[in-house]
Amino acid sequence: MAYRSASTGQQIKAVLFDTFGTVVDWRSGVARDVAAFAERHRLADLDAWAFTDAWRAKYDPSMDPIRNGTRAFVPLDELHRENLICTLPEFGLDPSDYDDELDDLTAAWERLDPWEDSVAGLTELGRYAIIGPLSNANLALLLRMGLRAGLPWAVIIGSDVIRAYKPTPQAYRNAVHLLRLDPGEVMLAAAHNHDLAAAQRGGLGTAFIPRPTEFGPGQAKDLSAEGDWDLVCTSIVDLAGRFA
Amino acid sequence: MAYRSASTGQQIKAVLFDTFGTVVDWRSGVARDVAAFAERHRLADLDAWAFTDAWRAKYDPSMDPIRNGTRAFVPLDELHRENLICTLPEFGLDPSDYDDELDDLTAAWERLDPWEDSVAGLTELGRYAIIGPLSNANLALLLRMGLRAGLPWAVIIGSDVIRAYKPTPQAYRNAVHLLRLDPGEVMLAAAHNHDLAAAQRGGLGTAFIPRPTEFGPGQAKDLSAEGDWDLVCTSIVDLAGRFA
Repeated sequence: MAYRSASTGQQIKAVLFDTFGTVVDWRSGVARDVAAFAERHRLADLDAWAFTDAWRAKYDPSMDPIRNGTRAFVPLDELHRENLICTLPEFGLDPSDYDDELDDLTAAWERLDPWEDSVAGLTELGRYAIIGPLSNANLALLLRMGLRAGLPWAVIIGSDVIRAYKPTPQAYRNAVHLLRLDPGEVMLAAAHNHDLAAAQRGGLGTAFIPRPTEFGPGQAKDLSAEGDWDLVCTSIVDLAGRFA
Repeated sequence: MAYRSASTGQQIKAVLFDTFGTVVDWRSGVARDVAAFAERHRLADLDAWAFTDAWRAKYDPSMDPIRNGTRAFVPLDELHRENLICTLPEFGLDPSDYDDELDDLTAAWERLDPWEDSVAGLTELGRYAIIGPLSNANLALLLRMGLRAGLPWAVIIGSDVIRAYKPTPQAYRNAVHLLRLDPGEVMLAAAHNHDLAAAQRGGLGTAFIPRPTEFGPGQAKDLSAEGDWDLVCTSIVDLAGRFA
């Protein structure tokens, strides 16, 4: 079977997923590695959750100069490392004291656990459509994340492959072109309304999957659908059921 | 377990495969679709094997202007289509008579059967290393080929992703960089000595798997190892066994 998008009028042949937040729980995973780092260095006062949130707060702004063309493309793992170096002093730590560990701590963004429905949902959905990440992460990060978490991707589209960061129009356009499909044959699945809005402007189908604890217990945004999305699902398993 | 390359001195973390000829049997697959095309159009005199060989003869030369920088990068599926258009008149056929079918016939290069050891060997090898194609084919072609043939790739590195055609040094270098590995942690597996030689010059490990009928019954080249390769294997299953 297959799913025909009401908005695009075409059969969906590929479902591409936002990953951080939509497929994997970045906050718990990064905080776990930050906590281990703190313990190793006897930094009893380091709040791993606060550190993770501060590190992540730099994520989106760090891509902006690349999005608007004032900086040449830099892959996300390098931005994560730069952002880590900026975050450490905010917590009273000198990056140069941890030179040997910065690469490994940056790789915390590869060691993220899937939400409990992700593997089962992707496995089922993979029977009906090409499935892959369409993430701001780079390919190597997504590859290692997927192997560790058991994500059954058919293809991995990293931002370094398409040389563009969402939500710029090129990100969706380049991914669709790489797959040799029409925009209306591709669906973006995401927990973020702004990502879906950009995909929809590019002619893609859209599926919203809320992840109300992605940003922690006090999350205030993306709790519900804010656009006219093709599908609003409770989980990736639910999404797969729409294709079955 | 894992395999440590004698030539690079490093543990191999990823094995990348040449695909046409090494993993799949392009000649039989393309000839099958050419024969079906001939039958559909009652072209009783069209020799599907000769047509396939003539089409394939344009494969390597068509990449040369891109390799040497006199033509901008064009993905392989477009080159295959151009080469098809050049091949038809050699057999007395006018491409404009078949406009509606050129895309589908070009996609014959996606509908290729694996050699009998390929799926079992890749599945086993995938337990020990990252496995993916490093092919002159573009990503969409490799993706659809892999889904049809059941190739369990962890990652797909198309020539359009790395914007380079083997055996230029950039092809191997860009693939290694994309994986965030050292050249010595990556092995190329191929049925072609010249491909392995270029990979070795780039610092990669090498595995030769002869495919003595790739070019048909009269094949005269690549019947045996012609370089100092890390591994000379009888099949991909044999290759996987070296890692187990």
